[in-house]
Amino acid sequence: METKKRPHVVILGAGFGGLHAAKALAGAPVRVTLVDRNNYHTFSPLLYQVAAAELEASDIAYPLRGILRKMPNVDFLMAQAEHLDLKNKKVVTTARTLDYDFLILALGSVSGFFDIPGAREHSLRLKTLEDAIRVRNHIICCFERAAQLPDAESRKRILTFTIVGGGPTGIEYAGALSELISSSFTKDFPEIDMSESSVVLVEAQNSLLPQFPHRLRRYALSHLRSMGVKVHLGSRVRQVTGTGVFLENHDPIPTETVIWSAGVRGTPRVLTWGLPVSPRGGVNVLPTLQVPEHPEVYVVGDLSHLAQDGRPLPMVAPVAVQQGKAAAQNILNAISGKPLQRFIYKDRGSMVTLGRNSGLASVKGFSFTGFPAWVLWLLLHLAYLIGFRNRILVMTNWAWDYILFERAVRMIVPKVSVDQIPRSSSAPF
Amino acid sequence: METKKRPHVVILGAGFGGLHAAKALAGAPVRVTLVDRNNYHTFSPLLYQVAAAELEASDIAYPLRGILRKMPNVDFLMAQAEHLDLKNKKVVTTARTLDYDFLILALGSVSGFFDIPGAREHSLRLKTLEDAIRVRNHIICCFERAAQLPDAESRKRILTFTIVGGGPTGIEYAGALSELISSSFTKDFPEIDMSESSVVLVEAQNSLLPQFPHRLRRYALSHLRSMGVKVHLGSRVRQVTGTGVFLENHDPIPTETVIWSAGVRGTPRVLTWGLPVSPRGGVNVLPTLQVPEHPEVYVVGDLSHLAQDGRPLPMVAPVAVQQGKAAAQNILNAISGKPLQRFIYKDRGSMVTLGRNSGLASVKGFSFTGFPAWVLWLLLHLAYLIGFRNRILVMTNWAWDYILFERAVRMIVPKVSVDQIPRSSSAPF
Repeated sequence: METKKRPHVVILGAGFGGLHAAKALAGAPVRVTLVDRNNYHTFSPLLYQVAAAELEASDIAYPLRGILRKMPNVDFLMAQAEHLDLKNKKVVTTARTLDYDFLILALGSVSGFFDIPGAREHSLRLKTLEDAIRVRNHIICCFERAAQLPDAESRKRILTFTIVGGGPTGIEYAGALSELISSSFTKDFPEIDMSESSVVLVEAQNSLLPQFPHRLRRYALSHLRSMGVKVHLGSRVRQVTGTGVFLENHDPIPTETVIWSAGVRGTPRVLTWGLPVSPRGGVNVLPTLQVPEHPEVYVVGDLSHLAQDGRPLPMVAPVAVQQGKAAAQNILNAISGKPLQRFIYKDRGSMVTLGRNSGLASVKGFSFTGFPAWVLWLLLHLAYLIGFRNRILVMTNWAWDYILFERAVRMIVPKVSVDQIPRSSSAPF
Repeated sequence: METKKRPHVVILGAGFGGLHAAKALAGAPVRVTLVDRNNYHTFSPLLYQVAAAELEASDIAYPLRGILRKMPNVDFLMAQAEHLDLKNKKVVTTARTLDYDFLILALGSVSGFFDIPGAREHSLRLKTLEDAIRVRNHIICCFERAAQLPDAESRKRILTFTIVGGGPTGIEYAGALSELISSSFTKDFPEIDMSESSVVLVEAQNSLLPQFPHRLRRYALSHLRSMGVKVHLGSRVRQVTGTGVFLENHDPIPTETVIWSAGVRGTPRVLTWGLPVSPRGGVNVLPTLQVPEHPEVYVVGDLSHLAQDGRPLPMVAPVAVQQGKAAAQNILNAISGKPLQRFIYKDRGSMVTLGRNSGLASVKGFSFTGFPAWVLWLLLHLAYLIGFRNRILVMTNWAWDYILFERAVRMIVPKVSVDQIPRSSSAPF
């Protein structure tokens, strides 16, 4: 086989980093195997809208084999990487062992719990499509359960939704959840007094969105509060239990719902593979994205740790996309004997939505708030979604919500019995 | 409270029968409590398209509370009915006990396995939204697993999909699955030789669709065979195991997928409640839909057993809809002292799709086949779907499929590992 002689590039993970690396290697003189435990790519910036019953899971997912059809030199393997043999250049997966000439590690991150007691056991997450479905089912179940409860104190606890972490995900979900309650649920549950329900956002630092300019931070805070979100700044979580969150400097919050968006760290499995690990749980890489002493191994996206201008690069989709492309290009350079390029992140700006008609954006030194930022956010997210059909479905759902103040995906599927509401992410759903 | 004096009607089940009974009682001088274990109504005639990766689950489901908003005298309770106390007119549910003045039982049916060894344990079903998601995930996983298998015999077994039952559901799913494989999967899995895959339809009787005219039965058989479906008529299933189906009068079929659409019977739980049970597992009712000796209890839809023109009424959606409305009207008649009406089913015809551009319909003595029947089927199903948004989404997905020969919902969500493919419906998903 002529193709057998081509260098074999194995990419672990089909998130933003891995998928864009595969795209950059399509048609190049290499064989590529893309490995993921899921058969789809997730557009993770919209996960929170799945959790807020606004979008259906399949609106923001795309079958990987559908993307790879146009790339004859890229194979897909649905499997989980279990072990890496750096010396012999082999990856052991749940399906089979793969030999590689080049390896791109793009396995992303998981929630980080800072060893806070109970946090891991009693928190819901927003990192995967399953997480988002689980959060959605849980929230709707809380309302169905509250509708059946005669005891006001229990009802209030069940209707208190606590979000830990004032970064973009926590803020966007706080806004979306608050609107879900004030729009659809107020009409759905006439038997519930909605003053018993609250959305609480807890942030350990003294400000939301520390990476944004001061004006935008203040805007986010005042806008969330105007929507009725209770924001507690400078409140470090001390403990999480099945019925409450305990804070430093604040009264405990009786709640059965804790959504954790406070920290991320590299996928832990990877950190046992003998790679150089950074204190924040990533893999240290050279400016070329290579692992020191293993020039054939590249790490991109949330899993990689690289500083630029003295600060570690943020764990966001644009960094992963650019690093995936850069690693692919460096592999092609290495094969053809050209010099490798140092990775430089081009920050095109950041943006956050805060519910209907409102958002904030920081682009090249300019700050936008309100309606213009919201429209910009909508357009950019539609543009970056994969697939024309997904764009139509997302637009239909957004228009529906916007015109009718209505969230469509309020079905509890797969079923969770009201008497068995999962209180931790380890519960079945 | 003035409303307390109004008669209380409890409806168990929010399928076609229960939901249409609730609608008919909206605004009438009664209090209504609609009880369902799910918080949504399922448009079950399209379940097979969810199982064929054509529609998303939420496209054919609608939140019950969204429907009931316009009916102030109808409450919703998400719970499962556990026990009926006919004497004291009480229903015990997982949430609370309900007193009733009138009761409408609309709890539907479950798959019937005729005590065939292994059938219950090793078959997938197509009765609920969860069933359909489970079948979809299972089928995609079979292909992902086959893509990793070097052994041709195992691969062939994993790629053989056996559907038991030649009624409308079995036939429609055989056609849809066959098209899923020949369109999307052939492009998705270039590493699989699709001649190793087959869809097998097994029917115990000597004809498909016994309730249809002879010409349509022959059309269905020849059309399915022309699509590559292997149809075995007069083949009674003797046993089902995790690796095969054993038939009378035919060689065993090596398969790991058995989709059971051969029989339905009334929800078994109900049959322990002291109601008069028919041999086919329904509740015998009077022509007024009342239970003999319990004039305040009505049974509608698949759960009821009533003969018309010497034959039991079929277990189909139109019967349930008409019976739900009729039971509601008889309750209002009873309250106002008017005579009750005998239920007479108005058969407006039956139709079945057979994949792209093809269907069959029997309407008032006229038979249609091919493209006209297919278009009629599409239009009627769109018209009967609940919700404008669901119609748009279903149309978008159908148009996508039709124009691009592509099934969009090919994601395995919730995740099933390829090494843990559920082989029976009792497995987690």
